[in-house]
Amino acid sequence: MLGRVNHIAIAVPDLAAAAAIYRDTLGARVSQAQALPEHGVTVVFVELENTKVELLEPLGADSPIASFLAKNPSGGMHHICYEVEDILKARDQLRQDGARVLGDGQPKIGAHGKPVLFLHPKDFQGTLIELEQV
Amino acid sequence: MLGRVNHIAIAVPDLAAAAAIYRDTLGARVSQAQALPEHGVTVVFVELENTKVELLEPLGADSPIASFLAKNPSGGMHHICYEVEDILKARDQLRQDGARVLGDGQPKIGAHGKPVLFLHPKDFQGTLIELEQV
Repeated sequence: MLGRVNHIAIAVPDLAAAAAIYRDTLGARVSQAQALPEHGVTVVFVELENTKVELLEPLGADSPIASFLAKNPSGGMHHICYEVEDILKARDQLRQDGARVLGDGQPKIGAHGKPVLFLHPKDFQGTLIELEQV
Repeated sequence: MLGRVNHIAIAVPDLAAAAAIYRDTLGARVSQAQALPEHGVTVVFVELENTKVELLEPLGADSPIASFLAKNPSGGMHHICYEVEDILKARDQLRQDGARVLGDGQPKIGAHGKPVLFLHPKDFQGTLIELEQV
């Protein structure tokens, strides 16, 4: 079911500072910051050779990463996104195996304009998993 | 400086259960468990198309992931490993930029038989970073 690792997301309290660390200290290629108000985050992409890291800063009052940053004020690894071919088939199979899909189970359009779903971290060793249909 | 994402490491309390979830529920290819007593972990590799996930279970009394699991009993994302061409050059450059290298700063031979170093999570938005020379 799992294809490529699309990205690893890291929640950060200060996006400009984090982007500077990845660009200047770690010598990686980083994108301009993009505000995604419909997702409650501003994002910078760190482009690696085989995948990417997404640095996420909360945007607006109801950011989905606000509670994570309240618990982890310095930031931290937030989720892993895997690509799948058919997100509805993946969802149904996962549910059949007893895994919990977050929200109402209907794929939303994610930060890359593609359908995504999130899986409950308690069913996956404390790791929040995003599935993205590619 | 950063090359490929070599792996994303997830600490788990029960390696057999975690491997079964990745194999059976998520439909990924997983390796046999390998005990690495010199690293204080038993590891299962989840082979994705472009990188891998390493599931780590503590092994022995002084496991480097024991305290993480004490704080996160269900498990969780533990570190990201990036490949670098020259680990000593990377280390010296990072230190010059004010980043802290863990331990005595001498690369150790990591789980893949290659020199590795870890960087202080406080200098990288709460993310433990491993560098591996390839």
